[in-house]
Amino acid sequence: MKCNRCGERAEIKLRQHNAAFCRTCFVPLLQKHVRRSIRKQKMFSLDEHILVAVSGGKDSLALWDILIELGYQTTGLHLSLGIGDYSDQSTELAVAFAEARNLPLLNISLREEGLAVDDATAFTNRPACSACGTLKRHYFDKLAIDRGFPVVATGHNLDDEAARLLGNVLHWQMDYLARQKPVLEPTHERFVRKVKPLYRTTEFESAAYCFFRKIDYILDECPNSAGATQLKHKEVMNQLEAASPGTKLSFVQDFLERARPMMQSEANRPPLTCEGCGMPSFTERCSRCRLVREVQTKRARYADRARSE
Amino acid sequence: MKCNRCGERAEIKLRQHNAAFCRTCFVPLLQKHVRRSIRKQKMFSLDEHILVAVSGGKDSLALWDILIELGYQTTGLHLSLGIGDYSDQSTELAVAFAEARNLPLLNISLREEGLAVDDATAFTNRPACSACGTLKRHYFDKLAIDRGFPVVATGHNLDDEAARLLGNVLHWQMDYLARQKPVLEPTHERFVRKVKPLYRTTEFESAAYCFFRKIDYILDECPNSAGATQLKHKEVMNQLEAASPGTKLSFVQDFLERARPMMQSEANRPPLTCEGCGMPSFTERCSRCRLVREVQTKRARYADRARSE
Repeated sequence: MKCNRCGERAEIKLRQHNAAFCRTCFVPLLQKHVRRSIRKQKMFSLDEHILVAVSGGKDSLALWDILIELGYQTTGLHLSLGIGDYSDQSTELAVAFAEARNLPLLNISLREEGLAVDDATAFTNRPACSACGTLKRHYFDKLAIDRGFPVVATGHNLDDEAARLLGNVLHWQMDYLARQKPVLEPTHERFVRKVKPLYRTTEFESAAYCFFRKIDYILDECPNSAGATQLKHKEVMNQLEAASPGTKLSFVQDFLERARPMMQSEANRPPLTCEGCGMPSFTERCSRCRLVREVQTKRARYADRARSE
Repeated sequence: MKCNRCGERAEIKLRQHNAAFCRTCFVPLLQKHVRRSIRKQKMFSLDEHILVAVSGGKDSLALWDILIELGYQTTGLHLSLGIGDYSDQSTELAVAFAEARNLPLLNISLREEGLAVDDATAFTNRPACSACGTLKRHYFDKLAIDRGFPVVATGHNLDDEAARLLGNVLHWQMDYLARQKPVLEPTHERFVRKVKPLYRTTEFESAAYCFFRKIDYILDECPNSAGATQLKHKEVMNQLEAASPGTKLSFVQDFLERARPMMQSEANRPPLTCEGCGMPSFTERCSRCRLVREVQTKRARYADRARSE
């Protein structure tokens, strides 16, 4: 198999594009594709300073690397989630990436901020992924606003977006469908723009990119994700992709072009302001503040019980 | 496991409803469910004479049986498609069902009408399912109109509808999505209303119904369907259903209630009239007349070549 560009030996085959490339051609090609997504969707300009959410996984590290290579101004944001060893290792890798390249990284520990994911799941009945999502969304906005970043970029890839779209479509969650786009403009003064520059990049491509660029990332899946519905949806999308290469890309892209515009009318009403933390919320208190309160109440109850026993 | 209705031993478990039934309770229950679908979607009234498309498979025979049991006026329509032995066996079973119950059945041979499916696939490059669909749609309308039936009922079940919806959604075929409903009103004087009373009934339920009612149906899959995309989509939907029972039903039902109404605007322009056969068409000649002409041309060419060799 030969590289479609230079004719040398190919190292990666992209079935969805019916093409193969050597690493020397693939790396700048992927960077160019990401730049095209950024420009096409008007995600941000070269003048803006971008806060890149970096988990320590392949997608977010590939994204950060690509943005730097494309000449964007970036600062990394790593949330130490507090999910046992998995989080410690993720933090190490994110920090190592930044240090090796002398890049600015905000490293925030959710435990130090008051509530780690492990505690949220231990003291409530919420699914871990739901608590984790609530906390992440809160801190992405809060930290960006507090430190003056106009935009947060996340590493969501095509596989994530296709699986999420499938989930939303299976239940026809019209609100979620209306908001499923690669650029989410803020609807409150304490929301920032959220963008997904890798929404057309597969998991496989970002893993290959890290491999070719010698980026160390965490290989383990999050221990909380086992059995998650999202994984089932990814599995199913992989089967459909194998049967008909290009399915994921056209599923997501055609949705954005043809179907989502029709769902505009259902779009979200502007949020209120949370009484607890001042961040946007659709109820009196935002979901993060309600989560924190729930954990505090349960903790106090357990402590009382322990004392009386 | 006990029957949810009468407490006797259950013979069928319906995971999507988290319920189990004995045959004595299941049979009238399914009939009632179908009546509810017919009424909810205003498919037809007791005064109308319904042409039931009967393939000889479990769904269409179960449908015909249910409509009779519910007191509707029906005539069966069987198209002998001309797909080798499979069609001969299907025809036998459809005829046997009608004769045993003394029911009126129109038995139409596509070969005698001018073009069987086997010839359409032998002389053109069209996929068999596409040629078959074109011919079926043509004769359903033509025979109903010519003989004064206001409505054609087909045996499409929930599995068919969910797989079709998935296929339409994967490519965001907005025209197809706008038309995917259990009642299709005619948009041309030579179209009739098409209805799918089993759109909320699973394949499993119609098979069980036939078993309990001792209805003989063709067990083989159509030989042309092997490898068809529709089968892949059914397989995927079965996996999603197994992971989360009720997925198929909510996928189809929520689509009809929440998403499809938004797609109204894209709805179909009214068709023209085919120059060849006078039936509705979106081009000068309808797809069936183009298919017939293509076969005639190729046949003549082959005959010429055979003579000259």
